[in-house]
Formats: sequence, structure tokens, C-alpha cells
Amino acid sequence: MASFSTLAYFPSTTMRCSSNRARYDPNKKSLNNIKINGTSTKSTTKVDMASTLASVSTENGYISEQQVRQNIPTTKQSVDHYRQAMSIEGGVGYRQRVVIRSYEVGPDKTATLESILNLLQETALNHVWMSGLLSDGFGATHGMMRNDLIWVVSRMQVQVDHYPIWGEVLEIDTWVGASGKNGMRRDWLIRSEATGHVFARATSTWVMMNRKTRRLSKMPEEVRAEIAPWFIEKQAITEDVLEKIVKLDNKAKYLNKDLKPKRSDLDMNHHVNNVKYVRWMLETIPDQILEAHQLTSIVLEYRRECGSSDTVQSLCEPDDDGILKDGLKQEKETSLGNRFSLAAEILEGNGFIASFGKQPLRYTHLLHIDGESQHEEIVRARTTWKKKKKKSL
Amino acid sequence: MASFSTLAYFPSTTMRCSSNRARYDPNKKSLNNIKINGTSTKSTTKVDMASTLASVSTENGYISEQQVRQNIPTTKQSVDHYRQAMSIEGGVGYRQRVVIRSYEVGPDKTATLESILNLLQETALNHVWMSGLLSDGFGATHGMMRNDLIWVVSRMQVQVDHYPIWGEVLEIDTWVGASGKNGMRRDWLIRSEATGHVFARATSTWVMMNRKTRRLSKMPEEVRAEIAPWFIEKQAITEDVLEKIVKLDNKAKYLNKDLKPKRSDLDMNHHVNNVKYVRWMLETIPDQILEAHQLTSIVLEYRRECGSSDTVQSLCEPDDDGILKDGLKQEKETSLGNRFSLAAEILEGNGFIASFGKQPLRYTHLLHIDGESQHEEIVRARTTWKKKKKKSL
Repeated sequence: MASFSTLAYFPSTTMRCSSNRARYDPNKKSLNNIKINGTSTKSTTKVDMASTLASVSTENGYISEQQVRQNIPTTKQSVDHYRQAMSIEGGVGYRQRVVIRSYEVGPDKTATLESILNLLQETALNHVWMSGLLSDGFGATHGMMRNDLIWVVSRMQVQVDHYPIWGEVLEIDTWVGASGKNGMRRDWLIRSEATGHVFARATSTWVMMNRKTRRLSKMPEEVRAEIAPWFIEKQAITEDVLEKIVKLDNKAKYLNKDLKPKRSDLDMNHHVNNVKYVRWMLETIPDQILEAHQLTSIVLEYRRECGSSDTVQSLCEPDDDGILKDGLKQEKETSLGNRFSLAAEILEGNGFIASFGKQPLRYTHLLHIDGESQHEEIVRARTTWKKKKKKSL
Repeated sequence: MASFSTLAYFPSTTMRCSSNRARYDPNKKSLNNIKINGTSTKSTTKVDMASTLASVSTENGYISEQQVRQNIPTTKQSVDHYRQAMSIEGGVGYRQRVVIRSYEVGPDKTATLESILNLLQETALNHVWMSGLLSDGFGATHGMMRNDLIWVVSRMQVQVDHYPIWGEVLEIDTWVGASGKNGMRRDWLIRSEATGHVFARATSTWVMMNRKTRRLSKMPEEVRAEIAPWFIEKQAITEDVLEKIVKLDNKAKYLNKDLKPKRSDLDMNHHVNNVKYVRWMLETIPDQILEAHQLTSIVLEYRRECGSSDTVQSLCEPDDDGILKDGLKQEKETSLGNRFSLAAEILEGNGFIASFGKQPLRYTHLLHIDGESQHEEIVRARTTWKKKKKKSL
């Protein structure tokens, strides 16, 4: 279980909300009318949570030099001009426009999976920022701080139907919901700004850990009271049964040894960056497979965090028995939640239906610490791939 | 000499301009009035190159699906709403607002040098895009294409006075100018959006290479006629004499061997990314030095490009005799061109004057191919460092 608190920080303000939409709304609110900066604009009146703003009071009147430089809102806001973002879902969800930059794409001129993971982290953090939280961004709720609790991520799943191209304009939505009795879910939806087509979906599960004892914790009632108003039930990915990821051992077909984190791999928490984990895992797959295939899905199960002094092994095993099952599961999910995406796939002739006979590949992954007596698990994962279509750029 | 054409692509439209400002103008044009999207805004009337737009005709009426997705302008524009950017300097310069993202900062919560280099590349490319160039972004001018010429970068220099913090809003200006008879210069200025203080300056030198013979070329007259109207004389960094970077040999104090590019290190040209070079060089400096110091300047001299199959060595030598000289040079440059920055340094007590007695460190670097009989140089560099001030975040 890794303390990737960079993915789920939670606003400390408490607000009531009633929005509860079960699926993607094609009449989506648009960012097109937002000014980049400055005073309130006409568009804010279109945002239906504007009326709730008056009930929020700033809990800390002090604005630091850092906050001025960062342009962090001191009260909950419905629009962030600097980040081209706005509140959605009755004020509890977040939508940000991003443009894929030249250094976020790979040799094929489409965004790398790592870039997509980076953007998920970024929008999650910005969601919290826009809430008006006056901490350094790593804060839990007040109730969590009183109880020495932090968020840790236990599971993450990303499905990519289309990789955005260099310069493409995206809209990324993110929101949180309940996960069981003691957990939280954070979901994301990445759409093309030009067409509205869904390019990618992601979901993650978070639990609370005591910062001192490093043990997992139930959610205290006072914390539930703080965060429950932010929960909405909409899910980016509908999955009936979570498939278990088997634990690999040293008989795995592919093995990369002696992986050592470098300074540039550490994040603000001085832990190895989540994205670095994925890079280590993908680099264990032979290049000729990576070149001919495109990742369509990754599921990560986090076990413990990796520090800067750890030496890591990356294990990887091809997983051939999941081909048909995976194809059927994909069909079910698509029919449930992703009609836009399915339409796009059919139109472009390169998606689910076209790839059904192409035998998608699956791999099971494991990163563990290279200890003297035992190997402590860092993260298990499963990746699903499809044949690359002919280069379109 | 590396074909880092990603840094200097040049617009193919020809436009007259007369702007020629020698230094940073505090009455800078502001991005604050730009709308994110859509129709022309009131602010465009403030941009003094608007009247020149009428003279530009679209040379290719066809708009591809890719262009729609990327929102590439089909004619020269003064404002790019998606990238929060606008033309400056009479229409030939470019200004973009960017926010430092959570994954662009290191463990100290300030932007990494690599992130800054990435943003220089990004703004240079976007400058060309906004010109209305209808290519895939790798295009030279029409005259260059007729002569089989491409741009290659020969030198790059970056000075960082302040590292922006996580979430900080920046304005990055970039423009091009003449360099000698046959070269081109591209400069950048990075300022705090909140205060206007200059955080970083950069300059680069570009020459033309024949794509087939791989030999350097003079600038043909027809090409000069195309690009000269875009040149302005303003320089981000004033340097009287270019100091030569000595060539290191295997007696260098620090050496990293067996560096192999990975798939994720390759850019859209299938060459090793410029930023990866810098990472390799900096990782050769011992961690305890990196942790206590902050890079203030880097000069890179490119010799040849590095392909995906090359094995690279990184050499590094501390350079103690440059301490006093470097301090004096820094004083001169500061007094010439960077009054805002100097004022900020004095105010914060951590800048040039305060650090004058602190013995700035310098290192000489070399990356070369680990060949069997000889080592071909990829890039030489020199880095200058100062002691880190106490953590402010």
C-alpha cells in the first residue's frame, strides 16, 4: 500500500451538494466561455453551483507569498482561469482543459501512458486546489489531521481507447465517491475537446492510514461527515467483479534487475513516483512487442511504497488465457458506459469490434524490493494490449 | 551538431515587421484579457500587429482531421486561446502563459531544469504553430524545403535565477533573430506572471544542414528573404565573449558508463531527447552535491545526434578556477539586462550579491558515444551552481 497521497488529497471545506448523475452527460458544460483570467465572467452564471458559493467562508485569512505566486484560490471557486478549469457536477466535480505538449508524446506522436497518468495526478490535485483548501496541497481534511490520518492509494485502473495526439485539446473530468464503508474512489474521464469522444477512463481506490503507526484505519465518523457531501455515484469504469492479479515469482519469463531510483524519479513526498513504477514495468516487456502494440488497459494494486535507497526488480509474465474473457468483458463495459467511444471505434474501424479477432495480449507484472532474505512487494499490475493500427500521423 | 529540429522550426509565411526592442519592456502586454476560446475578443485590438493580419493568405486550403483535433490555426493568428498565448513584438514574437504542474517539480517542490527545458521546446514549437504554418510542425520554410535544408541546433544556454514553484503561473516569451551571416538565434524569457520578475533566460543558435549530405550549409538568399522579416535584435542573454568549453577525456573525475537510451527517451524524431542528455550529465554529479546546490546556468554545445542504438558515456569534471571570473561575469550580465531579477535577489537576500562570497561551483561535462576505436562527441556542456537557500516551501 503506497502513500501516493498526490492522487487523492481531499478538500477541507465542507459543502452540501445534491448532484448525483449516474453517467456521462452529453449536454456537458463547456469551457469555451471562460476567460483566462481576472474578474468574474458571464460564464460563471451558467455554472449551476454558483449559488452555493456564498455559504463558504475562508477558514484562514492569511495569504502567503507562495499562494500569491501559485494563484491558489483562498475560497472555493467555480472557475480557475489559469488552469482553464471549472466546477462541474453541482460544484463537487472538476473539469480542466489541457493541451498535449510536444514533450508528452512518444516517437509515434501520441501521448504516452506516462503523460496520461501525470495528467490524472495533476487534475486530481487541481480539483482540491480549486476547492479553496489553504494547505500546501498535501492536506487531509481537518478531521483527518486531528486523527493523524493520510490517504493512501490501494488500486488504480486506467483504460485508454484512443491516445491523444500531439497538440490535441482534451477535457479531463474528475470526481470522488464512496468505496465501501471506509474507502474513497476517485474517477476520471478524458474526452476530446473537439468531438466529445471519450479517449480514456480511470478509477482509483483510496484508504486511510495512520501516519504514525503506518496502519490502515477505519474512516472516523467526523471524517465521513466532512467528505460524504463531495461523493457522487457516477463511475467512470463499471466493473462487476475485480479480477485478482496473481503474484509472480522469479520464474517469470521477463525480469529486470538492479533498478535503482534516481533523484529525478522522486516526487514531492520523496518517494518513487507512481509513473516511474509504470515505466519500470513496461520496460520489462521486450521492445518488439511494445513497438507493435498499444496498451489499452492497466490495473495496478499497490502494496508498499518504494524509497530512494531501495533496489527493485521488475517481473513480467505474458498471460495468454485471458484473451477471450477480456474481449467479452470489454464488450460489456462498452455497452454500459461508453457509447460515444464505441461509436467512434466503429466509425474509425480500429476499435473493439475490429480488434475482436486480433487476440489482445495481456501481461501480469510485479515490482518488488530486492531484499537479502525476502522480496517485499511494491505493486502488482496487469496490462492489456492491442495491435497498433497503421500510423495516422 | 544535433538535428534538434524540435527547437527552431520556422514559419513558412512571410510577413513584414518593424519591431526591434532591445530589452524587456515593463509595460508588457498582458494575457489577462484573453478569452480561452472562440471568437475574436476585445483584447485582440490591443495587440498592435492585428492590422498586419489581412496581408496573410492561406497557402493551403485543406484542413486535415489532425488539424481539427490539434486546433492548429490555418492562418496566422494573434491569439491562441487553447494554449493561452498571443503574438508580441509587432506580431513576430510569442508569449504563452503556463502553470507549473505537480509532476514538473522535484522533491524540493520547484520546477526541475528538465521541465524548464521542456517548456522552452514547447513554446518554440507553439510560436511556429501560431504562425499558421500548415505542416506537421517539423517544416522548414518553403525555400529551405526546396534546398533540402533543415535546422540543427549548435548551442544552447539557459540561466535560471529563480526556479518557479509548484503551481506557479509563468509567462514565457520567445522570438528569433540573426546569428552571424548564416545562423539563427532563438531566445526565451521566463517571467513570473504575478510579479513580472524574470526567472530565467535562454538563448540558442541554429544553423542549416543539408538533409541528404548531412553537411552544414550557408543560408541561401531566398531563405534569408523569407526569415529575415521575423528577426528582432533583442537578446535574452548578453554575452560579450563565448567561453570555450574544454573537451574532457577519460581522466575526468566522474564517469557514468553504459548509458543506453530507452524507448521513453526518444522524441518524435526518433533521436534521444535533448532533455535526456541533460539528465545524463547531471546524474554524473554526486548526489550530495546536487542536494546542496542549485544550477544557475548551463551552456550546451552540440556535436552530433545520438541514436537509439548508441551506448553513451557521461564525463564530468569540477572546474574550480572559474569561481571569481564567473562571479564577475555574472555581475556584468546582471547590470546589463536583468534589473528586475537583481532587485528580487537583493530583496530576498539569496542572490548574486549574497552569494558572491559563496564560491559558485562549475562543472565541465561531456557525453560521447562509447565506440570501439574512438569516442564521438555528442555534446559538451558547462554548468554553474550556487548553494541552495533554506527551503521556503
